[in-house]
Amino acid sequence: MERVAIIGAGELGGAVAHALARRDVARSITLVDDAGRIAAGKALDIAQAAPVEGFATDLAGVTDLSMAAGASIVIIADRAGRGEWQGEDALTLLKQLARTASGAIIVCAGASHRELIERGVGEMPIDRARLFGSAPEALAGGARALTALARNGSPRDVSLSVLGVPPDHTVIPWADATIGGFALTRLIDEPSRRRLAARINALWPPGPYALAAAVAMAVECIAGRSRRMMCCFVSPDRTEGAGRKARTGAMSVRLDSAGVVEVVVPSLSAAERVALDNALGL
Amino acid sequence: MERVAIIGAGELGGAVAHALARRDVARSITLVDDAGRIAAGKALDIAQAAPVEGFATDLAGVTDLSMAAGASIVIIADRAGRGEWQGEDALTLLKQLARTASGAIIVCAGASHRELIERGVGEMPIDRARLFGSAPEALAGGARALTALARNGSPRDVSLSVLGVPPDHTVIPWADATIGGFALTRLIDEPSRRRLAARINALWPPGPYALAAAVAMAVECIAGRSRRMMCCFVSPDRTEGAGRKARTGAMSVRLDSAGVVEVVVPSLSAAERVALDNALGL
Amino acid sequence: MERVAIIGAGELGGAVAHALARRDVARSITLVDDAGRIAAGKALDIAQAAPVEGFATDLAGVTDLSMAAGASIVIIADRAGRGEWQGEDALTLLKQLARTASGAIIVCAGASHRELIERGVGEMPIDRARLFGSAPEALAGGARALTALARNGSPRDVSLSVLGVPPDHTVIPWADATIGGFALTRLIDEPSRRRLAARINALWPPGPYALAAAVAMAVECIAGRSRRMMCCFVSPDRTEGAGRKARTGAMSVRLDSAGVVEVVVPSLSAAERVALDNALGL
Amino acid sequence: MERVAIIGAGELGGAVAHALARRDVARSITLVDDAGRIAAGKALDIAQAAPVEGFATDLAGVTDLSMAAGASIVIIADRAGRGEWQGEDALTLLKQLARTASGAIIVCAGASHRELIERGVGEMPIDRARLFGSAPEALAGGARALTALARNGSPRDVSLSVLGVPPDHTVIPWADATIGGFALTRLIDEPSRRRLAARINALWPPGPYALAAAVAMAVECIAGRSRRMMCCFVSPDRTEGAGRKARTGAMSVRLDSAGVVEVVVPSLSAAERVALDNALGL
Repeated sequence: MERVAIIGAGELGGAVAHALARRDVARSITLVDDAGRIAAGKALDIAQAAPVEGFATDLAGVTDLSMAAGASIVIIADRAGRGEWQGEDALTLLKQLARTASGAIIVCAGASHRELIERGVGEMPIDRARLFGSAPEALAGGARALTALARNGSPRDVSLSVLGVPPDHTVIPWADATIGGFALTRLIDEPSRRRLAARINALWPPGPYALAAAVAMAVECIAGRSRRMMCCFVSPDRTEGAGRKARTGAMSVRLDSAGVVEVVVPSLSAAERVALDNALGL
Repeated sequence: MERVAIIGAGELGGAVAHALARRDVARSITLVDDAGRIAAGKALDIAQAAPVEGFATDLAGVTDLSMAAGASIVIIADRAGRGEWQGEDALTLLKQLARTASGAIIVCAGASHRELIERGVGEMPIDRARLFGSAPEALAGGARALTALARNGSPRDVSLSVLGVPPDHTVIPWADATIGGFALTRLIDEPSRRRLAARINALWPPGPYALAAAVAMAVECIAGRSRRMMCCFVSPDRTEGAGRKARTGAMSVRLDSAGVVEVVVPSLSAAERVALDNALGL
Repeated sequence: MERVAIIGAGELGGAVAHALARRDVARSITLVDDAGRIAAGKALDIAQAAPVEGFATDLAGVTDLSMAAGASIVIIADRAGRGEWQGEDALTLLKQLARTASGAIIVCAGASHRELIERGVGEMPIDRARLFGSAPEALAGGARALTALARNGSPRDVSLSVLGVPPDHTVIPWADATIGGFALTRLIDEPSRRRLAARINALWPPGPYALAAAVAMAVECIAGRSRRMMCCFVSPDRTEGAGRKARTGAMSVRLDSAGVVEVVVPSLSAAERVALDNALGL
Repeated sequence: MERVAIIGAGELGGAVAHALARRDVARSITLVDDAGRIAAGKALDIAQAAPVEGFATDLAGVTDLSMAAGASIVIIADRAGRGEWQGEDALTLLKQLARTASGAIIVCAGASHRELIERGVGEMPIDRARLFGSAPEALAGGARALTALARNGSPRDVSLSVLGVPPDHTVIPWADATIGGFALTRLIDEPSRRRLAARINALWPPGPYALAAAVAMAVECIAGRSRRMMCCFVSPDRTEGAGRKARTGAMSVRLDSAGVVEVVVPSLSAAERVALDNALGL
């Protein structure tokens, strides 16, 4: 079983730790935050819930990033009281992780982390398969929940993906979306579908519970407990011609113990194709 | 919470009792079988698993059908050592249930129960909303599992439905099927898709674990714990012109505490439409 | 299924809403907080996690307490940015609930809510069976987790209860505590046991994850999904002689749809008995 | 994640495969039975339930024992239509496993497997830590369920262990048993306790659902997903004086990836001590 380190014990970091512990997907979770006793307090809080929730994962909270060494999966979240890791601080963090946890897969949990992934893969020698972001899946979850609501149905029955760069360049391949095995476009009329699209866009950025659920799904895939496809922020493949100038964006991917192992390229309508190319700067 | 009675403590009846108990979806489950101590023994066996599996449902096994009185949901399964309830015995059972459990919703669990439902609704005053069969969902589950395997993916990502009268007149609306939010027909080529269809047909009749999982899903919908759509055997609506001569077949439905509350009619390709009309005798 | 209202969308209120939604124990959860859009935002965040976590509970966030009318269970939590409901504000809230949700069972989620329960039952016509607090179970969870850690074992194997008024008058009936079916006192020596007791006391007040897990356990008992015993803040029975002057404290109770239906009075050692009498002001 | 092989696709073998798949505790499960297509059919049946039950474990059914090579955990269950593996056939099987799956931990699932374990450890070079039986935990589960019923409580609240050689030499350390953290002997009077003991004995042998739940618990411990103590058939330690002549019996143990890593020796009453010594032939 995996050893997971979560960098940042803010609201998101705590929610991620809880979501992972509940699923018993890791042997141990280390919550790292240099702000005093906050990481230790959250780890203890979650550990106290273990007897009721019935999980066995070990939890610890520490202040020192070097404790993340040995983790097979590192989650970048938010610092207590200081928001998601961003800018130069975040890049410096990535550099430290490249030393202390060089073999780890790095999952960026935050809605703002698209840029961090772009710079990390672009400026540092980090493989695009091993540095990606799970936030788009949280938006996809919201999209499924809203779509289900429109039909008074279950989100589990709604199948759709979210691509591009939300919120300004969100691309949803509507022609492929289904509800309970039937084309969505047959069950929801066009004006309702357009209203739905607008409301989905307004869901960005997702909140900590939704972001944490998306991280947990990614970790289950990495740990071999699920083979589901997910919407993730991934960097373009630099070895391909078009990849050289493309932006990091949300794509539908498959994850396993090696990280991103497949990017599923959709067949889009002409309009969707243009929108996606614009989103990705192609 | 619901009181559930399961008629027949054969392999299927036992699997259904276990599947329902594990989900803690009913306050009590009564397993009814006139064959000696078999129902009591299975109920005790399952109850012994409760401390490990962590459920709270009460289980009892009885020989007398009158003990099913008071159940809000009755499941018709298989008799110990004698296979699924069928023929005149099954019709007589339905008549008894109409007296002793007149307010109950009746879910037929067996793969062979299409005909029982057809006769029950056609010959007795039982509403088509309150007598239906969950076996087609087990086939749909198998179809999703095989499709996922073809892509080394997760069954949870596969969205498709199974209609008609399997195995001879199974209709799958392939154009609407998706994998992870993308049209299946774009991800699986036509020859592979045809092989898949043949292999799906060979899954009929599903085994007891798959049939029991389908029943559990139906009960969760009836109990308000899920709003998922399911593939069920439903009788045609006699009040409509075409319904008068139509057969009972698998359709995609939505269930709630009133039973079948919506039948979702798919938009099929011309070939699929003909196949479905043939299946349903239209 | 139950309709639950949670009063206060602070960190605790949000954690409670998430814990209940995940368990699919309620048909609907209404999060009430008069602070702008916070309740609506948290409800939406949790609802977005539904497709990943697979639950069906409806969630809504509102600003108006009158929306709690119709709830069968009301949880009193913490106000966004203002901490747990306390003092006269909390009493006023109780009075409003006595009007708008008169039939509801009221569960106080906070660690500070012992006094609110004492005053609510003492000064208002609220039955002690229908107004109680679940925080002591969070402490008991912590006690089990720490005890398990001392043996490198599982919290699920540790059986112990927490009584009295934590943190100053916590009483743990150690002679009755067991690990895996064996007396704890045989597996953990006395000096270790004393250190454990000191560390357990330091766990008070529990954090929001642990408090939320305790509330979820209470709601599962009220909804008939569990028959477990819990440690809860309960008011003394005023009809008994000793009850007239006794304080509200943590006791081991059994809950069902009527609220607190049994208080299990332990046989304590002489020292534990004195400590408990002191804690409860007897 | 683990690769598990289950030897025998009878009712018990199928139930074990299903219990393990549902928990997603293994990467793959191979069901082995030389009786025609039965193993393949059961594996397919369970795999069809995956989309509804939401698990990702791969399942296969084969006829050839050599396919068990590479398994880290081997479960010995029952042959289709021929009951639990027993006698010389079972010993021969153990010898084959010692060759083909030499590094594996072997868990005997059956109620009749005490003797097989005794002979396997005694006559073959198999370490007692790596060959043991989980059936006593199924009886302990039954004991907890019956005890809970006597108090209208939850089995999860009952803490007790089952030792010795059931059904003739079952030893339950009653003085250590608790309900919700309180001594059982204070909550259940002596005559009721004696009736309970008699009824617990009558639960032996447990049925397939209970036996399968016990195996699943053992596999979760081996896989590092749980640290719970379990009642298992274990052979005596031959290196100790008393062990030389002792019998294999049910003891309370802790399991991890190395198999049985700790046997917890209870402090028994004088009468219980005599009974246990008799049971184990000391």
